[in-house]
Amino acid sequence: MKNCILCKLVKGEIEVTKIYEDSKVIAVMDIQPINPGHMFIFPKKCVALIKDLDDKIVTHMFKIAKKLNIALRKSGLKCEGVNYFLADGEAAMQEIPHVHLHVFPRYKKDGFGLKFAKKYFKLPPRKELIEAAKKIKKQIK
Amino acid sequence: MKNCILCKLVKGEIEVTKIYEDSKVIAVMDIQPINPGHMFIFPKKCVALIKDLDDKIVTHMFKIAKKLNIALRKSGLKCEGVNYFLADGEAAMQEIPHVHLHVFPRYKKDGFGLKFAKKYFKLPPRKELIEAAKKIKKQIK
Repeated sequence: MKNCILCKLVKGEIEVTKIYEDSKVIAVMDIQPINPGHMFIFPKKCVALIKDLDDKIVTHMFKIAKKLNIALRKSGLKCEGVNYFLADGEAAMQEIPHVHLHVFPRYKKDGFGLKFAKKYFKLPPRKELIEAAKKIKKQIK
Repeated sequence: MKNCILCKLVKGEIEVTKIYEDSKVIAVMDIQPINPGHMFIFPKKCVALIKDLDDKIVTHMFKIAKKLNIALRKSGLKCEGVNYFLADGEAAMQEIPHVHLHVFPRYKKDGFGLKFAKKYFKLPPRKELIEAAKKIKKQIK
């Protein structure tokens, strides 16, 4: 896509610090890191959502993410754990409509966390889980 | 592992609402959903961290996660987007030391979000990104 920031990174039209590149994916440093060492990896093909990305690319991206995870843990950067975060759609906090997976180091008291709605703290009855499961299972191909 | 909750789910020793199962992975409903339809998928093999999980299992898990993502979007449950979240290590908010990937639906104003430390809002100079990248790249195998 013409105005996609990630496509511009692929083409080198924007300053970028690359970590990894092959024919299918690229990994780069996030310019707004949650902690130092925060990367994201994305397919070169411009696709907004995982559902529209070929299985081969999906699996390759997560295979390379594992390599990055291991390298990050060995890098000497402060890293007691690693988070993967992927926002698939604008309502899921996706800011750029081109699939990308965040991989970032974590350590105790680093200040990052999750915010939950009040409803999260009230567990639903099992029957609600069963009903939701039925609806999802019906659509698994 | 004897006392691993996820291993008990695999064996059916704890009440569980399954969504998907094959020889390598299982997906179940989360009993504390961020939104209705929140699932997690995990390998049957009890491994705490991604780094110790075979590439074949890693890639299979994310291939099935794509199926779940698509099914969730078609399920009729409220779903305007999907998040993947994986906590790899206790410092990364992993609560059960057995790899598992959260896949959950999102919609506008659902109350879920990320909490950032103050440092997040101050962008680091490029040279810091380059230095971090060097350290990580050295360790990529």
